[in-house]
Amino acid sequence: MLQPEHRLAVLLHGGILGDSGKTGLTLLRYRQGAIAAVIDHETAGQDFQQLTGIARSLPIYGSVAEAIAATEIDVLAIGIAPSGGKLPEPWLAEIDQAVQAGLSIANGLHTPLLLRYQAQLQPQQWIWDIRQEPAGLAIGGGRARSLTAQRILTVGTDMSVGKMSATLELDRAAQAKGLRSAFVGTGQAGILISGQGVPLDAVRVDFASGAVEQAVLTAAEQVDYVWIEGQGSLLHPGSTATLPLLRGSQPTHLVLVHRLGQTHNRHFPEFIIPPLTEVIQLYESLAAASGIFGRPKVAAIALNGGQASDETVADAADQISQETGLPCTDVVRFGAANLLTTILEARDS
Amino acid sequence: MLQPEHRLAVLLHGGILGDSGKTGLTLLRYRQGAIAAVIDHETAGQDFQQLTGIARSLPIYGSVAEAIAATEIDVLAIGIAPSGGKLPEPWLAEIDQAVQAGLSIANGLHTPLLLRYQAQLQPQQWIWDIRQEPAGLAIGGGRARSLTAQRILTVGTDMSVGKMSATLELDRAAQAKGLRSAFVGTGQAGILISGQGVPLDAVRVDFASGAVEQAVLTAAEQVDYVWIEGQGSLLHPGSTATLPLLRGSQPTHLVLVHRLGQTHNRHFPEFIIPPLTEVIQLYESLAAASGIFGRPKVAAIALNGGQASDETVADAADQISQETGLPCTDVVRFGAANLLTTILEARDS
Repeated sequence: MLQPEHRLAVLLHGGILGDSGKTGLTLLRYRQGAIAAVIDHETAGQDFQQLTGIARSLPIYGSVAEAIAATEIDVLAIGIAPSGGKLPEPWLAEIDQAVQAGLSIANGLHTPLLLRYQAQLQPQQWIWDIRQEPAGLAIGGGRARSLTAQRILTVGTDMSVGKMSATLELDRAAQAKGLRSAFVGTGQAGILISGQGVPLDAVRVDFASGAVEQAVLTAAEQVDYVWIEGQGSLLHPGSTATLPLLRGSQPTHLVLVHRLGQTHNRHFPEFIIPPLTEVIQLYESLAAASGIFGRPKVAAIALNGGQASDETVADAADQISQETGLPCTDVVRFGAANLLTTILEARDS
Repeated sequence: MLQPEHRLAVLLHGGILGDSGKTGLTLLRYRQGAIAAVIDHETAGQDFQQLTGIARSLPIYGSVAEAIAATEIDVLAIGIAPSGGKLPEPWLAEIDQAVQAGLSIANGLHTPLLLRYQAQLQPQQWIWDIRQEPAGLAIGGGRARSLTAQRILTVGTDMSVGKMSATLELDRAAQAKGLRSAFVGTGQAGILISGQGVPLDAVRVDFASGAVEQAVLTAAEQVDYVWIEGQGSLLHPGSTATLPLLRGSQPTHLVLVHRLGQTHNRHFPEFIIPPLTEVIQLYESLAAASGIFGRPKVAAIALNGGQASDETVADAADQISQETGLPCTDVVRFGAANLLTTILEARDS
């Protein structure tokens, strides 16, 4: 389906200045394959790098039609997630234009698009509805436990604390070291970035562990280190995804991700985040149950420093290190090389 | 949809003597509403009570047509689960006959039947595909924590250890005591028995906690004690359902269910069941995370004695009580009154 050589245009109307563009912006930050254009009527013609801080030199066009006229594009990736998951009519018209122009569509919205366009697709043209349960799933059997590849799963003190970014940074650092390493995406952005993975939130409970297992087994065929994007949190009252991730990936290591200064669930203030030492113990106990590789440990902590100064973040990381006895850093800001070293050293512990 | 006054015929071809009839037999054992007939070509005309040990006086007919001719039936409940979930052709033909005769259908198979029959349904006639995700689900918000009704969730050392039966027995014992009490089914048999609930294995991960929450909130409108049927096990490598059950029901108490003598996962012998004290601690830690009612405790242990003698079971229960400091009994065999008393006493602890 989506290949690294595909030239993407990312549909981001209102998402560069507004806050509905997280998926597209993450794709722009982390995709290693080609990206040809961004589409945003609000910022058309402006400097993408200056606007976003993302180190990628890219033109911003005001519409799909303009982008198609100006440059060569293979795939339109929908990078905005309007509230309710429904595309406003004018943007749907733009997707129509893209399909008519022969572009494939990568769609991370809840609303599937394949049915709408199926009849008019040319050979080689596809519609990828990412948030659909894959076919051919089976019940999980903990089979990832027998892999020789290491399996490192990120877990968090809340949702949206930076698990995906930390996972991507660790995979990057491993590849920079020349290791055979792969990232398994488990949400729409992670899957868009890597071109593969499992849309865990769209999978039925019965098959959730099996879906993760299958994705991890596939990834492990080619590599020695599999970095699995965490989802949800054991501390969130609506979250289910962490358990099938633990079961399906049978992790050899966990990396805990925490946002600097966060004391409670961002949507439910009455759900307090306990001391990190307790959080670590909770994840380790659950990972040990139903694993036969002993007790996988939290090997490191990735701190999401947000908008704080480098000094503040470095101090906070030091303090967390002292509290927990584990290495801690902001991997997006300071790089993941140090945490990676710890994880590699913990390999046989 | 399914009401207590509906007269059911339970389709059980081969399921009374064979082992594909678990759903139907459980329905026959625990449904409090009317059941008019059993359909099984293998045992037609024989004594139902003698064959099954279930205290219900019922005719067994050889076919749907015979049952319809002989007695008044409102609903055909499919009580067999053939391997692969696909009904053999002759039995599908019998379901056709039932629909033509005006019967409603309660279908717990993975294969939906509504589409097949929708066009020919008369008013009042319905097809209930139990294993479909309900409409209108939302993300869970831990709202059950604010209920005044007590919420007691069964958890297990494995799948298929008797969580549903233990939950039903506890609800029965509470009702026998005159308490306002309800059972929330979370699997096909439990839902068939109670006429409501949430088919958790068919719900997408994103909505799993929310689906449980919604079912528990609805049940709690009428009662003071909500007994939630457990699913899966934290000790099973393929299981995901326990986490949304803990999150959605925000339990005030847990009841641990264990099968006498079982030392490891029945499908994965390499997954050992740890000492029950460790299992209890695991469930309590996870229940405490993301709950704000303090730490819900395992209040009692329900032992599934299987085919062992009463004496063996009673001795084993005593030993488990000594090990764990908790009351333990086989509630199906000896009744649930004692465990119920403990749970009621633990109410404010």
